[in-house]
Amino acid sequence: MTRPPLAVTLGDPAGIGPEITLKAWAALKDRRHSFIAHADPDQLAAAARTLNLPAPRVCAPEEAETVFSDALPVDPVRLPVQAEPGRPDPENASAVIASIERAVANTLEGRTGGVVTNPVSKAVLYARGFAFPGHTEFVAHLTREAPWIGPRGPVMMLAAPELKTVLVTIHMSLRDALSAITREAVEHTARVTLGALKRDFGLAKPRLAVAGLNPHAGEGGALGREEIEILAPAIETLRGEGHHVTGPMPPDTMFHAEARARYDAALCLYHDQGLIPVKTLNFHGGVNATLGLPIVRTSPDHGTAFDIAGKGLARADSLIAAIKLASIMAENRMKAAS
Amino acid sequence: MTRPPLAVTLGDPAGIGPEITLKAWAALKDRRHSFIAHADPDQLAAAARTLNLPAPRVCAPEEAETVFSDALPVDPVRLPVQAEPGRPDPENASAVIASIERAVANTLEGRTGGVVTNPVSKAVLYARGFAFPGHTEFVAHLTREAPWIGPRGPVMMLAAPELKTVLVTIHMSLRDALSAITREAVEHTARVTLGALKRDFGLAKPRLAVAGLNPHAGEGGALGREEIEILAPAIETLRGEGHHVTGPMPPDTMFHAEARARYDAALCLYHDQGLIPVKTLNFHGGVNATLGLPIVRTSPDHGTAFDIAGKGLARADSLIAAIKLASIMAENRMKAAS
Repeated sequence: MTRPPLAVTLGDPAGIGPEITLKAWAALKDRRHSFIAHADPDQLAAAARTLNLPAPRVCAPEEAETVFSDALPVDPVRLPVQAEPGRPDPENASAVIASIERAVANTLEGRTGGVVTNPVSKAVLYARGFAFPGHTEFVAHLTREAPWIGPRGPVMMLAAPELKTVLVTIHMSLRDALSAITREAVEHTARVTLGALKRDFGLAKPRLAVAGLNPHAGEGGALGREEIEILAPAIETLRGEGHHVTGPMPPDTMFHAEARARYDAALCLYHDQGLIPVKTLNFHGGVNATLGLPIVRTSPDHGTAFDIAGKGLARADSLIAAIKLASIMAENRMKAAS
Repeated sequence: MTRPPLAVTLGDPAGIGPEITLKAWAALKDRRHSFIAHADPDQLAAAARTLNLPAPRVCAPEEAETVFSDALPVDPVRLPVQAEPGRPDPENASAVIASIERAVANTLEGRTGGVVTNPVSKAVLYARGFAFPGHTEFVAHLTREAPWIGPRGPVMMLAAPELKTVLVTIHMSLRDALSAITREAVEHTARVTLGALKRDFGLAKPRLAVAGLNPHAGEGGALGREEIEILAPAIETLRGEGHHVTGPMPPDTMFHAEARARYDAALCLYHDQGLIPVKTLNFHGGVNATLGLPIVRTSPDHGTAFDIAGKGLARADSLIAAIKLASIMAENRMKAAS
């Protein structure tokens, strides 16, 4: 059985999405990571001319594999108004959303193998009534009725070749995060992550390291009690279920190369605890992966970059890494299911 | 004028201090970073035999420069009981403390040029009534009556060749840190740091980057208001004083190589925000420097390592880096004063 192509969404058409999608195609056309763009063929054709790349070709997902070595396959999502680089227009919000919906629907039907989302501008989508904090929650919503084995996410993972971290709390103030770090949240995030490490990353016996919250992981209670009251009991429960879980680890000494060799992913308690080490180690190659959903979904770890849109300056590294990771995850998931 | 030698303290004699002091001497004896150990000559002589190094030589600080190329200079601090590697003994706490006091006193008198402290076990010192949270506060106490130009620390800096960070809050729970991050604390830490970057690091116009507290530096208030209410006003005040201060920066995107090129030090708000990036980038070469005191003081960025003490396995990298940094700081401070 041939693996279906991945689905790459439009993202904000005034951002760097169209450019990096074409650049990613150029970088990957001779490789096995085929994909189809749910985007505007006219906009992509114009961008391709500027970049001296072949014109994209409109086709069905089923034809993408064949087309891919010659041209970027495109499933048309027409823009209501022409996109001007750097000037996002709420008039195009409907197309941005439709592209995500189409990519998810095709993937649920098995026509595409996973979804890779280009960056969107939340402000633009909110102006048109979009009610989700971001892609992650929207994709979770769109797949909420699809069957799923095991604990359901979404859990956000930031993955680079050097380090994978997952987050118990994400987009909230640090003060709010402190209240949201509960035993239940830690255990649930761990279970979703361990399931994904097996199913999507092909690890038979994944090792999860749990970060402490306080300096030196609380130093036996002297510098905070969350390690004793929340983290240690959660780790004990997870171990009781047969999982390989270590911690709570002093957060500052768990991310250097020697320490990283002892685990497959680090469970972090708040946004910057997980994102600082990954982005410090590898700023351009980080990928955001959503774990625990009925479909594979990844995205580059950067925004719309309106300031450099349309100038040919954008780096496709993170989108390429996102496509490669989605491809690997989709393949592992197929193997696990077969 | 010749710069006086640095003073290296005993540290816990049951830890790796004696071994790494000898290894640091062996690595530095042909270089300009001379130092004298305030330690037990018999213990050092025994350790030197094990390591196949020349016997240390008892001398006065004034002779250390001459002795240094042949032997480790030692100013005797006798241990009340013989130290057993890996088994700290509160009986020796008095010698550990006396070594620090001697090093600080000699440096205040100008006989030594700065203090480099070997790691101590706080539990051992506390058992003998030591009343300070650590070296930093003890050294600040011992130098409290010495004259000092400019805002007085201590401010803790973690310095590696890749990155220097300073901390507004240090050893307290993350919850307590949130309350301790005030406008006054940020401004004071910044002023001490900027003074030290000029005087001790020789930077005529130092650039300080201030980290945000919340994800994405609060995203305009949506993810927390400390950036708006505390950090932005503090930065404005500092700029009004003529300082080059940027921020508040999104914490996750300020520590990769390209971002680091835009500042000389990063002001971080809590322990792990500042220590995670430095230790992730350079686990063995980090140095802890105390800024804003009448004397230069640095220390290796690791503990007593009782588990490997006396086995010849300890790496002296961080102590060597601490000695080199103290040497540079002392030299710059002499230049600034002359």
